[in-house]
Order: sequence, then structure tokens, then C-alpha cells
Amino acid sequence: MTYEILFGLYLLNYIFNRLTNGLLLYRHVIMNPISNLINRIDHENLWDCEITLARDEYLKVKGSIDTNIYLVVQGSLRIFVIDENEEHTIRFGYKNNLIASLDSFLNEQPSDFYIQALKKTTVKAINKKKYISFIESSEVNKKIWLNILENFVLQQMERERDILTSSPIQRYNRVLKRSPQLFQEIPNKYIASYLRMTPETLSRIKKS
Amino acid sequence: MTYEILFGLYLLNYIFNRLTNGLLLYRHVIMNPISNLINRIDHENLWDCEITLARDEYLKVKGSIDTNIYLVVQGSLRIFVIDENEEHTIRFGYKNNLIASLDSFLNEQPSDFYIQALKKTTVKAINKKKYISFIESSEVNKKIWLNILENFVLQQMERERDILTSSPIQRYNRVLKRSPQLFQEIPNKYIASYLRMTPETLSRIKKS
Repeated sequence: MTYEILFGLYLLNYIFNRLTNGLLLYRHVIMNPISNLINRIDHENLWDCEITLARDEYLKVKGSIDTNIYLVVQGSLRIFVIDENEEHTIRFGYKNNLIASLDSFLNEQPSDFYIQALKKTTVKAINKKKYISFIESSEVNKKIWLNILENFVLQQMERERDILTSSPIQRYNRVLKRSPQLFQEIPNKYIASYLRMTPETLSRIKKS
Repeated sequence: MTYEILFGLYLLNYIFNRLTNGLLLYRHVIMNPISNLINRIDHENLWDCEITLARDEYLKVKGSIDTNIYLVVQGSLRIFVIDENEEHTIRFGYKNNLIASLDSFLNEQPSDFYIQALKKTTVKAINKKKYISFIESSEVNKKIWLNILENFVLQQMERERDILTSSPIQRYNRVLKRSPQLFQEIPNKYIASYLRMTPETLSRIKKS
């Protein structure tokens, strides 16, 4: 599963953190754990490799174990599962987001998730072993990781609420409010799948 | 939101951990973080109070902020939300489970969740401030809490997959495999709501 970061404006935060790295540390830990984490991995030069995917190419397919964490450098990706021949898009990643098969990452088992590039996309990877020793190397890193997991739990709860919301308009409004950038970055047909509606319904709601 | 623990057999684990408390600590942290955590809170005598609820009574209603964590001593509860006059049951708690409005606990904002007793139920409560200082008081406690959050992320991912599974029989089989105890503890009509099917469909599937 995936580490979608749907709080928007990460690029600005990323630049801001780069400029102020080391200052106001506690505030950063609390305010923007993801870009803080990325800064720190950059700073220690821990990325293993850079991978470039063509549009529609897969970073991961069903049944594989993938314990890497990826940073999206350029482009965008989606995570989806297939149920009875129907694709369900469940997460997106775009520039400066972290993305992972989080189930595989946590339990080291094969995962049902597919991760696919939506356009030409470049990601940087860090493997789990290196990531865990990075996290365990300092109290601040542990605190950041805990904070990221807590935010992820909250996002998962919002997502569960989305799925249980029966009105398509309300589902749309919930996600638009939470993740306005999504609607700039991702083609309509995938947003429609994420919102569990047809692309036609989504177009109608956007026009209304 | 809630801290359902659906891995079953917690009572046995709880007794086992009480008998062996202090031994094989690392193994316990990894194998059963919840009962380990409960042991440690018991041992430090940190519970604030005990609350007894009549059947159908509410521990929490929509719009309230509740930053406590509860241990179910006796009885059972469900968590639900209401969407367009329809109740959606999203979690259960029974004996030796921890339960919380986890969104309120994490972000200290009002939560839409209701927590209701399904029969006469007793819970013990610990408030957030005390809980956080307990967690931060030792490296082992931090490790346990991280482990619990990681397990919770995995449970949330399973739950998302459940909801997106269109076949009622497959939804039933996924949850039965993961949480057999649920079907001993919780009345059919609430399990049906959790599984997003009518009680009649659930009965038909159980008989087949």
C-alpha cells in the first residue's frame, strides 16, 4: 500500500525546509514530518538508486514483495488493486511524495497492490534495511517516523470515511477539500476510480 | 476511531504475558504488542477510572472530543458512523481489546464516531497526557507503541481491501479468516453492517 501524501504544497515546504534545515527542528518534526524526513535522507545521501518509468509502466505488480520506500522526483503514479476484473485506484503519488507498498514494507510479505506510472516518472529508492537503521540512528528520526505513521493512520481513517460516504458529491467535496492538488496532478479517469464513480459522474459534478 | 484488535485469543495471550512478564521481553514486543502494553499499564497502575455502560449506552457520540484510550474489561462495543441516516459499523471491541476514538486521540479534534456498548460493558480508561508520558518513559514502550501503530496501519489496509471487495462471500471469508472470534462475540446484525450486507445475506452465507 501506499504512502500517498495528500496534504498538498509539499514542494514549497520542501524548499522551505531545505533553506531552514536544522533550525526550528521540533517545529518541523511536528509540522511537516514527510519533507523533514526527505531532507534528512538527502542529507545523509541514503538513496540507493534512481528509477525512471515510462507512462503506464509498473513499479510493482501484484504478488511481489517490495520493501523499498520511494520518493517521487518527477511525474506521478497510482496504486491500485484488481477485484473481479475491476481496478480500484486507492492512492496517488506525485512530485515530492513518498510512496511504498506499505504492507510489504511492514510485514515483508507479497502484496496485492500494483504501482503504475501515469506519465514519465522518476523515483528514488531507499531499501528497508537502510531506512530502518536510519530511523533508529536518532531520537529525532524515530519521532518523525512515529509522526508519519500517526498521520497515515488519520489519512486511512479519512479514506475509510470517504468510501462509506454514499453521496458522490459529498465524496468529491471531502477529497477536494483535503487534497486540492490531486485535481491538478492526476487525470480524471483515475480520480473517478479513487472516488468510486464513473468519469462521466465526476465530470458532471465538476461542472455543477 | 478505534483500536479494534481482531487478531483473536487475546485473553490467552494476556494470561501468558502476565505469567511471563519481564521474560523474553523483545519477543513479546514483537509478538503481541497490545497485551504487552496492557500489562505495562496495569503494572504501573495508570488507569484513571473504570466505567460501566448498560446495553446500548454510548461511551462517545458524534461531535465530541475523546482523547482517552479504553481497555475492555468485560462486554463488547461497536464503533459506527452515520451517513445519510444509515449507520455504518466500522470496528468492534471486546474483552481485552483496546478501543479509542483514535482520530480524536491523535489530533485532539471532534470526531464523527459513536462508540456504543452492545451489552453490559466495563472499560478502564487512561487519559492521553498520562498515556503519552508513559510511552515516552522508556525505549521499550516507544517500540511497543510504534509496533501497535504499524499493526494498525496494516489492519486499516485490510479493512480498505474488505470494503472494496464486491463479492459478499469473499468479504465474509476475508473477515472470518482474520477475526474468527468476532463471530463468537458480536450479534449478527452488527457484523452484517460491518460487512456491508443485510443480516439476511449474512445468515444465508453462514448457512451455505
